[in-house]
Amino acid sequence: MFKKILNSFKYNQIFERKMSSVNAQTLETLSDIAHRLRIHSIEATSASNSGHPSSCSSIAEIMSVLFFNQMKYDVQEPRHRANDRLILSKGHAAPVLYAAWAEAGAFPVSELKNLRKLDNPLEGHPTPKLNFVDVATGSLGQGLSCAAGMAYAGKYFDKADYRVYCICGDGESAEGSIWEAFAFASHYKLDNLVNIIDVNRLGQSEATMYQHDMDVYQKKVEAFGWHAIVVDGHNIEQVIKALDTASQVKGKPCCIIAKTYKGKFFPEIEDHQSWHGKPLGKQTQEVVEAIRKMIKSPTTKLGHELLPIKAPTAVVQPTNLANIKLATPPSYKLGDQVATRLAYGTGLTKLGQANPHVVALDGDVKNSTYSIKFKEAFPDRFVECFIAEQNLAGVSIGVACRDRTVAFASTFAAFWSRAFDQIRMGAISQTNANFSGSHVGCSIGEDGASQMALEDLAMFRSVAGSTVFYPSDAVSTERAIELAANTKGICYIRTSRPNTSVIYENNEVFEIGKAKVVLKSDSDYATIVSGGVTLHEAIKAANLLKQQGKSIRIIDLFTVKPVDWQTILENVKQTGNRIVTVEDHYAEGGIGETVAAALLTNAPGQSFNFRKLYVKSIPISGQPQELLERFEIDSNAIIKAVQSF
Amino acid sequence: MFKKILNSFKYNQIFERKMSSVNAQTLETLSDIAHRLRIHSIEATSASNSGHPSSCSSIAEIMSVLFFNQMKYDVQEPRHRANDRLILSKGHAAPVLYAAWAEAGAFPVSELKNLRKLDNPLEGHPTPKLNFVDVATGSLGQGLSCAAGMAYAGKYFDKADYRVYCICGDGESAEGSIWEAFAFASHYKLDNLVNIIDVNRLGQSEATMYQHDMDVYQKKVEAFGWHAIVVDGHNIEQVIKALDTASQVKGKPCCIIAKTYKGKFFPEIEDHQSWHGKPLGKQTQEVVEAIRKMIKSPTTKLGHELLPIKAPTAVVQPTNLANIKLATPPSYKLGDQVATRLAYGTGLTKLGQANPHVVALDGDVKNSTYSIKFKEAFPDRFVECFIAEQNLAGVSIGVACRDRTVAFASTFAAFWSRAFDQIRMGAISQTNANFSGSHVGCSIGEDGASQMALEDLAMFRSVAGSTVFYPSDAVSTERAIELAANTKGICYIRTSRPNTSVIYENNEVFEIGKAKVVLKSDSDYATIVSGGVTLHEAIKAANLLKQQGKSIRIIDLFTVKPVDWQTILENVKQTGNRIVTVEDHYAEGGIGETVAAALLTNAPGQSFNFRKLYVKSIPISGQPQELLERFEIDSNAIIKAVQSF
Repeated sequence: MFKKILNSFKYNQIFERKMSSVNAQTLETLSDIAHRLRIHSIEATSASNSGHPSSCSSIAEIMSVLFFNQMKYDVQEPRHRANDRLILSKGHAAPVLYAAWAEAGAFPVSELKNLRKLDNPLEGHPTPKLNFVDVATGSLGQGLSCAAGMAYAGKYFDKADYRVYCICGDGESAEGSIWEAFAFASHYKLDNLVNIIDVNRLGQSEATMYQHDMDVYQKKVEAFGWHAIVVDGHNIEQVIKALDTASQVKGKPCCIIAKTYKGKFFPEIEDHQSWHGKPLGKQTQEVVEAIRKMIKSPTTKLGHELLPIKAPTAVVQPTNLANIKLATPPSYKLGDQVATRLAYGTGLTKLGQANPHVVALDGDVKNSTYSIKFKEAFPDRFVECFIAEQNLAGVSIGVACRDRTVAFASTFAAFWSRAFDQIRMGAISQTNANFSGSHVGCSIGEDGASQMALEDLAMFRSVAGSTVFYPSDAVSTERAIELAANTKGICYIRTSRPNTSVIYENNEVFEIGKAKVVLKSDSDYATIVSGGVTLHEAIKAANLLKQQGKSIRIIDLFTVKPVDWQTILENVKQTGNRIVTVEDHYAEGGIGETVAAALLTNAPGQSFNFRKLYVKSIPISGQPQELLERFEIDSNAIIKAVQSF
Repeated sequence: MFKKILNSFKYNQIFERKMSSVNAQTLETLSDIAHRLRIHSIEATSASNSGHPSSCSSIAEIMSVLFFNQMKYDVQEPRHRANDRLILSKGHAAPVLYAAWAEAGAFPVSELKNLRKLDNPLEGHPTPKLNFVDVATGSLGQGLSCAAGMAYAGKYFDKADYRVYCICGDGESAEGSIWEAFAFASHYKLDNLVNIIDVNRLGQSEATMYQHDMDVYQKKVEAFGWHAIVVDGHNIEQVIKALDTASQVKGKPCCIIAKTYKGKFFPEIEDHQSWHGKPLGKQTQEVVEAIRKMIKSPTTKLGHELLPIKAPTAVVQPTNLANIKLATPPSYKLGDQVATRLAYGTGLTKLGQANPHVVALDGDVKNSTYSIKFKEAFPDRFVECFIAEQNLAGVSIGVACRDRTVAFASTFAAFWSRAFDQIRMGAISQTNANFSGSHVGCSIGEDGASQMALEDLAMFRSVAGSTVFYPSDAVSTERAIELAANTKGICYIRTSRPNTSVIYENNEVFEIGKAKVVLKSDSDYATIVSGGVTLHEAIKAANLLKQQGKSIRIIDLFTVKPVDWQTILENVKQTGNRIVTVEDHYAEGGIGETVAAALLTNAPGQSFNFRKLYVKSIPISGQPQELLERFEIDSNAIIKAVQSF
């Protein structure tokens, strides 16, 4: 351990003369502030009778140095585009983050005692309800991807020299998503990014895998292409020197691996296993007193009154992300055979033409999702994230932060299931990142079940505040993209692999929550509600039924969430209350359930004849049309359902 | 690169004398077989006009060596418990896996040309419909976790010396889940595990991050605590030596990092970017001819006729996993205050007492999910997977393979969203692994939204063939565990954080798909359908409504999937067709939608008055009861809903 520190110090000497000169007085003040952060964390969690004071204490010195010696930021405008950024990935240490902002003057210190109280934004884990939080944390292992996205935006889109800091726990370093982010950040040489690993040795229920073996962390971090510096995380001088060094390292991101102790300076609690996530209760006063005694210069002044906060110096252009329109309208002929995934690539490129802040992200399937078209047009605004969907989602959320970009991330829809937690947290983060998933359902054909998204509607619908587009042709796909670009919250665009007919005129107007009646007569026997490939099966069914003298009405949902139950209800009433939903998706959380619940809730006392067609078991390999037939979501199945009424 | 190979060879010399002697003739035969595997892969994908022949070719030599020189297995009984195991994590190379089994004599070579055809089990990606496949692959980065689970079972549960092999692609090594598995396997010293990384340089849409920089792979693998051996993956002798070495390394798993070429030996295709996932079409004949010429000793004999396959030697005891019962029945008093998460720990421990093959797995929250009770009782059957939920899921699936164990994995329900893809693939893998998620919904209180599972019912319901338990008290929780242990497919048990009353007698009998009417009178005005914490709110509401002279019926779903619509429908009809669902979950994919869709589908022409109560927006921090009230899923909200009819 000591050898490692010496090693890094040797390296530091190269930069010695460039370092900020920190005198003994400053070191003492930073140490005093660290202790105050400890006390605030203890008192806040004791007041709320819940929380993680011991996890706060291990990073008290790191926070003190970041806020009062290193970071450049405007306290009055924490989301100013020129500010340095900080993500507390170990979100359970929220109280020490709040304490630091209070000491920085963002809000009164007295407010800290309202931690975790109903309607107080100082929640158990950080969320962007607080203007100094960019992304919500609390599900571990996600912060570094978001930080890497912000650093990527800084270096390559904003071309500005604000810096991005991230603090991870050692326990959370077991999350693979962290290593996806490590690989990404070094691949793109994000030398504006610093990750600090708080190696406090203890997890929630037992010691971490590596405890205080700093060597393992260093080897891992270096193997992943980062510059690693091991420090004693409670030694303010070492932390400062490491961060100074980090600011000088070029061509690679820097990771500070801080050896710390959980509950540092808490008598009889420090480094003890049983103190994860526990307020100090009866021991509060005693521990606070012990720490208070360590403060060299007691004062009523706040941190920012003792040490000036550095103002931001980065020059960052403002962005205008409002009202982005396709550069040119869709240009197809009715009946053209175009896969919606291809239209996604076309539409996204048009969006990129219209606004320089539209960016696209990929997980090494760009030639399948057709986001490659965007890359070809705008290589500088395309981020290849390789086969690492969790990081792909996190980076997307990161680049979209502080309205730096309008981000569209795409991969096979099935593989977004890999990033469900990131997307769930994205909703809490109030992200506007957009996600597109291609290759949905059994209509992809021969590749088999592993590649078929049959749960993606369930997943994206369950994301709080999301909008779920399921366009059925090329025209509506392009419009879905346009709408997504201008819609708050997470948008999901579901695209299909097979070619399907263009069914809308190029000037058709689409709205979120407005379904389209694509086939209608005065004597329709039943209403079919669908989207995507199965909508075209419904049209086929209608043509066949017509030959038998039976007409049906067809509704294209366009958005599955929100679902346009008014249009559905109105039409269903006109067709003898007979309704069939059909979808290339499992039943659970899909179109049928959505529509059923909407009808039942919104039409009390009304009765229906309802049939759901969906994929009833795990599909197999086969040709697309064979599979639609086998899994009974093709035109024949629709005809049978209609005839069964 | 060459230096690396020399290094590893130097290391190999230590074991030189222990190595299998491989003569020149054998090397030549293995090479010939490799070429035949190539040809089979090309011809099969050309016949199906889809697939990934170039990805097969890069591992042809590796497969030849594994099947005809290294692995010990019974071709006639590929899932024999004593066999060595192989997981092809890069599942898109399925044709070469099928070809190897055909050459081993498992089925006729002629069958290979039915690849990807409807109803042929030789699907686009491997699934356990084939008796030589243990887990489905195709969503990348998952195989190593499953392999690690199998190796863990071999070393610690079976205490047998079968070996487990895994083949990953280089592209998929970007997936964080792989690094979770690397960390896990070295932490548990799985020296019966070999991972082979096929570094063929090319991803789907561009070159991989590290291309042929073998050094980076070696550093990463070593940093994660494995023994790394870099080889030329097309050099049979090197591959053999590396695998021989691997079999001798003790105390750590071994990773063979194979430098290979995509489309190796395909003229004008080898190492070219544009050939991912493409059958060779018109070039088929020409390429096959070129490869055929490389075969030194053409023959009609199969691989296993040329080189004897090694028989398994491991001594593995059979398991009996049938009809596992709680060692002792639940023992609570009506009205006891017990959290269902606590009952989970209690019940699981009783199950462990009843059967020695019940095992539990955790993601460092065992003191919150109470799986710690199982660990205290059976430390040797408890697998701590630390904070790495993807690997936790994969290892669970791995240890449950070939009926070696009955696995119960638990973490916070919110964090299972991290492993959605693994669980989705688990369903395709026909796993019987069981998952439990605690801390669901806003009733967890102060920790805030990041820790609250509000999408878990949507997620687990959407998993093909799953059973979703949502027990409402301690008795039913214990019975849910017992039922899960004996139920095929993925079972999910949703538990809650707060204490709730025991409402069932200890001898109450529970069945999957059978709801319980917990409150009933002849004059009930409406039916409330719920589960978990909100069921108790319904009971509270009933007591309050009774004071107003109104009685309501209450149904406890017990399983949300399958949902007992018959019981619900019958009772709803008896209560004026008035129904309220209430759940600590978002609307989408939850109880309300489930019930609505079931009623609408199964009661044509019947009308209802239906109210859904659910969490309508992202919750905040606060006390559990405050939050139930704020998000309108408490007794007051239920009363209001009933009064609104």
